[in-house]
Amino acid sequence: MSMYLHPQALCESDQVGEGTRIWAFAHIMRGAVIGRDCNIGGGTFVESGAVIGDRVTIKNQVMLWDGIHIHDDAFIGPGVIFCNDKFPRSPRMPEVAHRYDNPANWRDSTIIKRGATVGAGAVILAGLTIGQFAMVGAGAVVTRDVRPHELVVGNPAKWAGWVCACGRRLSREMTCPVCAKVFRIDDDKPIDASIR
Amino acid sequence: MSMYLHPQALCESDQVGEGTRIWAFAHIMRGAVIGRDCNIGGGTFVESGAVIGDRVTIKNQVMLWDGIHIHDDAFIGPGVIFCNDKFPRSPRMPEVAHRYDNPANWRDSTIIKRGATVGAGAVILAGLTIGQFAMVGAGAVVTRDVRPHELVVGNPAKWAGWVCACGRRLSREMTCPVCAKVFRIDDDKPIDASIR
Amino acid sequence: MSMYLHPQALCESDQVGEGTRIWAFAHIMRGAVIGRDCNIGGGTFVESGAVIGDRVTIKNQVMLWDGIHIHDDAFIGPGVIFCNDKFPRSPRMPEVAHRYDNPANWRDSTIIKRGATVGAGAVILAGLTIGQFAMVGAGAVVTRDVRPHELVVGNPAKWAGWVCACGRRLSREMTCPVCAKVFRIDDDKPIDASIR
Repeated sequence: MSMYLHPQALCESDQVGEGTRIWAFAHIMRGAVIGRDCNIGGGTFVESGAVIGDRVTIKNQVMLWDGIHIHDDAFIGPGVIFCNDKFPRSPRMPEVAHRYDNPANWRDSTIIKRGATVGAGAVILAGLTIGQFAMVGAGAVVTRDVRPHELVVGNPAKWAGWVCACGRRLSREMTCPVCAKVFRIDDDKPIDASIR
Repeated sequence: MSMYLHPQALCESDQVGEGTRIWAFAHIMRGAVIGRDCNIGGGTFVESGAVIGDRVTIKNQVMLWDGIHIHDDAFIGPGVIFCNDKFPRSPRMPEVAHRYDNPANWRDSTIIKRGATVGAGAVILAGLTIGQFAMVGAGAVVTRDVRPHELVVGNPAKWAGWVCACGRRLSREMTCPVCAKVFRIDDDKPIDASIR
Repeated sequence: MSMYLHPQALCESDQVGEGTRIWAFAHIMRGAVIGRDCNIGGGTFVESGAVIGDRVTIKNQVMLWDGIHIHDDAFIGPGVIFCNDKFPRSPRMPEVAHRYDNPANWRDSTIIKRGATVGAGAVILAGLTIGQFAMVGAGAVVTRDVRPHELVVGNPAKWAGWVCACGRRLSREMTCPVCAKVFRIDDDKPIDASIR
């Protein structure tokens, strides 16, 4: 088994894991790193310096810039927008050209942790961390870190509940209606209470 | 007269109607159904299981998933985002892989009714119906059904007025300033009062 | 030196300036005008009638319609959405087909002035002007004109501060923490006080 590359996709990276599929009009640049058993949707762009773990799903028309790290099992919905510059200007504008001489001056990283979901069309500002199993609602604009298992929605995105690893919203008693898992709040975030 | 396919478009479906035009870098999958006299913009993706009526305009870079139904004469603006899963996770994540064994477990349909508009960059959550001649404002995030002739804007999208079939906002007296049509509210939605 | 065209890009315009680079799956239509030293990201679409100045950065997957004017040194983030019709309907719908016989009936212009930034994933409604050195935050939905040096965020986008030409937010005393430039408010907008 090796990777699948659609005939209309471009892949210049030699660091794509086995079992990963890359669909039409996607473009993976040299130096991008993609793990095993990923699905990279049509039209998606992965820049040099982006790093993607295993079993990740990237839906269509996502752009992953230098400095974006997607951990194992994350789901990035269609049309999700990432940023890697907090004060973007055109790099060739004379007033700011010096800032763009060195990526250390402007480039900011974002981390999507294991099993998290970024919903369709969401926008994630530069320099943030989305916690393990978090869920960013479709169309949300995320301006701060998101805690593990946290559900956020809106513009700017705000707390709207907690979700299980499976994606369902927890009840007020912090149990999953599907998995029947019980969570407890520890250090301001939910912990699976069955794990000791 | 038959369909027009741009040399850089991909069309694997044999169910595309006469007079329909499909532009560069669009990708129509096998099993997708598209009616007559449609315009499918560049970069748009139509998945197996999506169904599009006649005279529909789909602008560039839209993604139409399995379960999305677009009725006759609808307008889908550029970059509109649809969803078909209410609790998306990466299907190969061990914690949820069983859910994705059967589409019936996760796939939800969305219907855009005749003559409706979904404005540029709007996000439509899974499982919703947008009524006939409704208008979803640009950038809106739609989390509930939209009534016929209803204008909604914002995140989450809320009622902001009523519109005529032509797209103009109705006056307080429920008349169209352009068409001079008069509407009356019937069962919580506007009805063209000239139709008996 | 002349322009660079990626082998997978399409350029039908003969009005692209020297030093401009156009990346994979971008499509520039005949009649589009692009200045010198621009960077046109992958998947971007530039329609006949769009006009782009010099040293402009257009990131990936932007669509620039007929009537969109981007002045020198502007930055258009990834996935930014423009509009050029305030009451969009499918042009072949019988109820509105006459409106689309003549572009003067429906087409509206948008101007992005020199050095302005439109952040990632923002939506700009039809018929607006974004002032010189303004900054539209990522994910904002802009429904009114934006003043020079104004920062706007949210849906709908609202005033959130003033920014320097370099992109940094000005202090309450209207000074830039990086450039040390001092601004004064004149006619409801900031003016660089060192310019006489």
